This record gives sequence, C-alpha cells and structure tokens, in this order.
Amino acid sequence: MNKQIVKPSLLPGFMELLPADQIVFNGMMDKIRNVYEKYGFIPMDTPAIEKSEVLLAKGGGETEKQIYRFNKGDSDLSLRFDLTVPLARYVAQHMNELTFPFRRYQIGKVYRGEKSQKGRYREFYQCDIDIIGNEKLSVINDAQLPSIIFSIFKELGLNEFKIHINNRKVISGFFEALGIENKTEVLRIIDKVDKIGVDKVKAELKDNAISYESIEKIAEFISFNGSNEEALAFLKELNITDKSFIEGVEELAKVVHYMEAFGVSLENFIIDLKIARGLDYYTGTVFETTLDKYPEVGSICSGGRYDNLAENYTNKNLPGVGISIGLTRLFSQLKDLGLLKGDNPSTLTEVLVVPVEDTMDYCINIANKLRENNIVTEVYLEEGNVNKKLKYANKLGIANVILVGGEEVNSGLLTFKKFDTGEQFKLSLDEIIKRFK
Amino acid sequence: MNKQIVKPSLLPGFMELLPADQIVFNGMMDKIRNVYEKYGFIPMDTPAIEKSEVLLAKGGGETEKQIYRFNKGDSDLSLRFDLTVPLARYVAQHMNELTFPFRRYQIGKVYRGEKSQKGRYREFYQCDIDIIGNEKLSVINDAQLPSIIFSIFKELGLNEFKIHINNRKVISGFFEALGIENKTEVLRIIDKVDKIGVDKVKAELKDNAISYESIEKIAEFISFNGSNEEALAFLKELNITDKSFIEGVEELAKVVHYMEAFGVSLENFIIDLKIARGLDYYTGTVFETTLDKYPEVGSICSGGRYDNLAENYTNKNLPGVGISIGLTRLFSQLKDLGLLKGDNPSTLTEVLVVPVEDTMDYCINIANKLRENNIVTEVYLEEGNVNKKLKYANKLGIANVILVGGEEVNSGLLTFKKFDTGEQFKLSLDEIIKRFK
Repeated sequence: MNKQIVKPSLLPGFMELLPADQIVFNGMMDKIRNVYEKYGFIPMDTPAIEKSEVLLAKGGGETEKQIYRFNKGDSDLSLRFDLTVPLARYVAQHMNELTFPFRRYQIGKVYRGEKSQKGRYREFYQCDIDIIGNEKLSVINDAQLPSIIFSIFKELGLNEFKIHINNRKVISGFFEALGIENKTEVLRIIDKVDKIGVDKVKAELKDNAISYESIEKIAEFISFNGSNEEALAFLKELNITDKSFIEGVEELAKVVHYMEAFGVSLENFIIDLKIARGLDYYTGTVFETTLDKYPEVGSICSGGRYDNLAENYTNKNLPGVGISIGLTRLFSQLKDLGLLKGDNPSTLTEVLVVPVEDTMDYCINIANKLRENNIVTEVYLEEGNVNKKLKYANKLGIANVILVGGEEVNSGLLTFKKFDTGEQFKLSLDEIIKRFK
Repeated sequence: MNKQIVKPSLLPGFMELLPADQIVFNGMMDKIRNVYEKYGFIPMDTPAIEKSEVLLAKGGGETEKQIYRFNKGDSDLSLRFDLTVPLARYVAQHMNELTFPFRRYQIGKVYRGEKSQKGRYREFYQCDIDIIGNEKLSVINDAQLPSIIFSIFKELGLNEFKIHINNRKVISGFFEALGIENKTEVLRIIDKVDKIGVDKVKAELKDNAISYESIEKIAEFISFNGSNEEALAFLKELNITDKSFIEGVEELAKVVHYMEAFGVSLENFIIDLKIARGLDYYTGTVFETTLDKYPEVGSICSGGRYDNLAENYTNKNLPGVGISIGLTRLFSQLKDLGLLKGDNPSTLTEVLVVPVEDTMDYCINIANKLRENNIVTEVYLEEGNVNKKLKYANKLGIANVILVGGEEVNSGLLTFKKFDTGEQFKLSLDEIIKRFK
C-alpha cells in the first residue's frame, strides 16, 4: 500500500541548519548569553504570541504590515516582531515586582513576514540587552552596553569591527541651530548616507528646500572624520548654544570616557556623527556596529537610548538603553563571508566507544565512567563490523574512538584511536581520562 | 497630553516568569541540555512555523483542532504542536546529509490552543531526544533514553521518581492471544486505569463485548505488581505463542538489562504492564515517568519506540525511539508541589561594586578584573546614597557587595560585605578574587 507522501520542505524565508552549522550557531549563542550573564543581566522569556492590541499598541509603521497576525477563537493574536515591545509590556505589567534599574537579556525568535530575499529571514533570533530605569537612568549605562557588545565580538573572534556612537540630541540640536523644521525628513535622508553617498544626500536635502548654507553645514557634519577627541572638539567649535545640543555633546563625551573605562579598545569604537537610526524611537545615544573589512554588510548590532520605554502601557516614565544582536542574520553573513571556521564536526561527541566483539556491557560501563568525568561519550549500539562503526565516527567527525574486544576486556588495556593523527594506543581507562583533563 | 494606554497583559494559557523563577527555570533547562549533550546528542532547531500541509500530513486526531493555523499571503501556515513532526520532516528532507543513527535533541516552544486550565499551557517548552535509524535500530537505544532521563532527574534533585516501562508488542500480542478484535478500543480503555481504577476498566471492557474470561485475564495483567524479574517471569508463564508477544517480552528483558548496565538504580524503574500510551504512534517500548509521592501528577516524561518516523514524508523506513520532557508543565507542577527551592535570588550577580564617593572609574576597573576571573559582577551606576545602593543589592538577593570610597582607593583595601552573614572585611582585590575560587 502506498501512502500519500507530502514533500518535506520549509516555508521560504525560514532557516534551519544541518548539525555542523547548528553546533557553530549554538556556540555563538552561548557566548552571547555567557557575556550577558557575566555582566549580571537577568534572563527573561516572554511568549512568542501576544494580544494584537498589546503588541501593536504603538501602531502604524512599516512593521505592522509584516506582522503575523491571526485569530484563534475570539482572540486577535500576533507573533512578536521584536523583543523590545514585549519588554515594555513586561516591565509595565510587572512594575511593582521588579527592581530598578531592571537589567535583562532576552534571546529568542521573532517573526516578520518580510519580502523574502537573501540574508533576510522571517523567523530570526534576536539577542537583546536593555537596562530600564524608574524615572531616571545614568548615561554611564549607555557606555556599558557597547562595552558588553565589544566583549562579545571579541569572544566570537571578530576583532576587526567598529562600534559607531552618536547622540540624537546632538543631531537634533544641530538641526535646531540651523533652523531646520522638517527634522524627521532630514534625519531620514542623512540616515541613508552610507548607502547613497554625500552628494545624493545633498541633492535630496535641496529637494526638501533646505538652504544651500545649511546643506553645506550638514554635509560637513556628517562627513566629519577624526578621532573621538577631534569629534568632540569639532562639535564644541560649532559654538551651538541649543540646550539639547550641549546636553548631547556632554553625554557623548561621557559615553566615550566610560567606554574606555569599561575596557573597549580605541580601535573598536568611534564617534560617528552621521548615524541617526532615523526611524527608531531613540532619543539620546545611538549605536551601530560594522565589520571593518565588510562595510557593505551594514550594522550587525544596533541600539540606543530611549526616553520612555513603556509609554503605551503605563504613565510611569521608564527611560532605558538597549542593544540587539540579530544572531540569525549575523550567522548567515559571517558564513557567507567565509568568516566561520569551515569543516566543523557534526557532533559534540568526544569519544565513541565501539564494541568489536560481544562486549556491549563492558563498553557501556566505560562510557558511564567517561561521562562521570565530563567527557562527552557515545557507545556505538548498532550491529555491524568494525569498519562500519569507524565510518560512523569518521562521518560525524568524532575525534577519538575506543575499541573494545575480548582482549581489551581481559587486559584492561583499551585500544584508543585518535582520528586526527591516526595514532593508536593501548591505554587503561584512567590513562584515557587523564588525556582529556 | 494623555496618551492612550493599553493594559499590559498576556493571553490566557501563556506563561511568563518573574526573574527569580526564570533563573530556576533556565537552570533546569541547562541541566537537561547538558545531560543530553554529555551523551553526544546533536542540537537541532527547526522553525516554529511550518507549512500546514507538512505539519498536518498525518491528519486527523485531537491535535488538529488545537493547532494555531492561519494564512499569510498565499501561505497556509501552522505553529508546531510538538517537536516530533518537525523531526520527521527534517530527517526526511535532509536524509542524504545526515549520518545514521541520527541522534538529536531539541529544546523549543510548541503551541497548542487547548482549553485553558490550570497547569495546561498553550505555549510550552518540550525537551526531546530521539534516535533515528536508517532501516534498523538496536533495542539497546530503547534502554539508553530512559537512562538519560534518569540522569536528568537525578541532576534536577528529583530522587523519588519511577520510570515505567512496557512494550506495545507485549500488550498487542496478549490481546491477540485472547482473540480480541477491537484492540485499539481496549488499549484506550486500559490506558485509563490509573485514572478510573481496575473496576471501571472492567466495566468498560464488558460494555465493549469482551468476554468475562478475557476481562479477568486483562485485569490480572494490568494489575500485575512485582519486580522486573517477576514481571518477566509472569509474562513467560502466560505461555503465549504469539510471535509479537514473544518478541515484545524479549525486547522488554533487553531494555531492563541495559537500563541496569547504563546505571539506572533499581528503585527508579519498573516494568509496568498497564502503560500503553494508547493514542500514540508507538510500536514497541513505551515509557512513562511518575513522582513516587505524587502519582496524581501523572507522567512527567514519556516516550517510546516507533517503527516508522517519517512515513508521511518518505518511503524510507526510519525506525526510532524518543522521549520528551514537557518542561513548562514540569516546572509549574514542581513549583505547585513546593519541590522547588523557594526564596531564590532575582539575579545572577555574585558581586555588586558600589561607589560611595567619586570613584566610578575605579569601581568599573575592579568590576572588569572580577569578570576576567569569571565572577559575575555589576557596578551600581546610578546616583544616590549608600543605603539606596545596598537596598538594590538586597532586593535582588546579590550576596556580596564591594564598597569603594576614597579611602579604599588610596589604601587598595576594599570593603567587602557579605549579605548572608552580615560580615564585613577589608580585603585587596586579589584576596576577594581568591575567595570566589
């Protein structure tokens, strides 16, 4: 009888990995989590499905079109499209049970029904950290977050990256001083400078009725190139008296000072007056992170300061600062760039114990002892000849095999085979365990 | 201006935790993962959303009504309701890229729009391990999985639990020998014995036109109570010649033998002839796990052997054995039973460094060094008096605080305060680091 076979396949825009890649992916996620935790961030986990009226409380925007929204029974549901909105809801909902500043990390999948294209996923992991204050939050937090990101990228072996820092108050104060009225539109335009270049930005500004003088000043501002000290000096020399501008420059100076204190290397961060993160809700410090050799990849980690996280859910004033690594995208970009080590094993197993005669019980006992010593161990349980069993180890990339026949059982000396070097030894179990320590 | 405030709330049937519980929950998940990995299982992660035609290929059943199913664009989508169907799809889809036996674990959220009731969640974590063979799979694997579960429950500090083992071939061979025709219905009835008792089972069997003699034999069978050896002897003494029965008894004997070899304590597993997992697709070994003192909780970890995992997606024969821990439910049950340690801290932080004068840079530097030594460290970055800062540590349950004023900076001797004992010392940073090792 032939059953009806459904072709096994995934929806477009959804990623899943084969074992070798999955192990690398999980290793990256573990590193991110470990650094977040080493800085004392609290884990948080919220449902992937929430009430649409809650998730979409802010309303409007490009995001809303991408939402996976549906009904079940009487409920209007949506899948979360980021981890920031659930954080806002969580903090407002549990306000009285939390201690502030509330410092949490959350690593989880989010969903956006974007147009399917290379490197864009409809389900992807975000790895967020945020610090939320009750009414107030020191700007030193704004320096701490990129410092944590610095530690993570170092852990991931990415040394040639740069964290770009700016402050929205500086930009908007600068616009204010120029007498620009349609700030949002101008912000949107200069936000594109990395993609379209300064000349096109200037043309677009002209189209928006910005004066020649202002355009030249904006061009000089967003083209500024120099050290952090030089950037701060440049800003001061603009002699702008706008209150927001002065505050922004002070904050920027503090963030630079404390990033150094937190141990970020000077080659890994820079004031960048052209970054604005135009369409986001940031109100102070903003961050982006680029790979030095691959600027075309764009920002691999962004974030910033927001004045009021949960304004849709509470009248309390909850300023915060947050930063997010889009891990699914980062993984796929690093893989495409060839920056992930190739030829990874498809296994976590360190030792495969292989019975070559009727020695299964003995093999299982050896494996138990290896595991007691925290050595990742498998026993080959299937029938077959030794070649078949070694082939299994070889295909997965298991580095070590212990062969156990009657002779090994009698002598207590096991045949220990190292796949990488091809070496083979006769060793007692204790000697083998010592080799792993 | 008053903004429109949306009341922050979750959908019924969705769980989220406050920090102290979340930390305990994650600790349990880490333990499960670590044991799975120590046995060399490969991590796997599949999308939460799949094509409905794929996820529902099997069709029918109670589950289908519970599915979160919706359209997006032209696509008919469903949220996964378990991790077994995605595993079947994954293995069939990537057949040629995988090495068999394929041993994977997967920890992830699944979705079932069940009627909302206490202890039942619509989004919950499952922690699955399965071993899939290509055409064949040794029954020793059936013994390995409950042994891994044994290790996990020991790690979780649950010592008084019992893994119940049976074999579907034994049951169906027994029915065959009795000449019972509507086996599925009888299976469904005896599956309820723990809930309704033997007398009601007998009554229901009678309603289903089972003969008096057969009912008595079935009652004796499902009421059997004795050691594993006694159970195997009991089965042999039935003198049933049905091939499936004999095979089942042999398998059961092997599973018992190898569970001992894998190190499972005799008080933690038992042959239990009444468990059938009636409505599932199991064909051989079946497992359930109960807490000795809380039988009313039911099975906290179940699984079994299936002949053909991916029959809806491929004509290849892929026998497997799997077991699953429903972590969300387990956590909530253990919490309700008071079996989780209470009064847990709401933090992972081991040390809070507190500037008591203008010593922020110094404090940050100390924190950097503590983290370099893998000590989870936070600096209190906000303004305020010492009491406010200590209150923060106290509320979160941070055990240690380092106070740094001008005096400490000058002398290099820091004030190290232990919250649990109230002790306070003057120590150098090196001495503090040593205390944590």
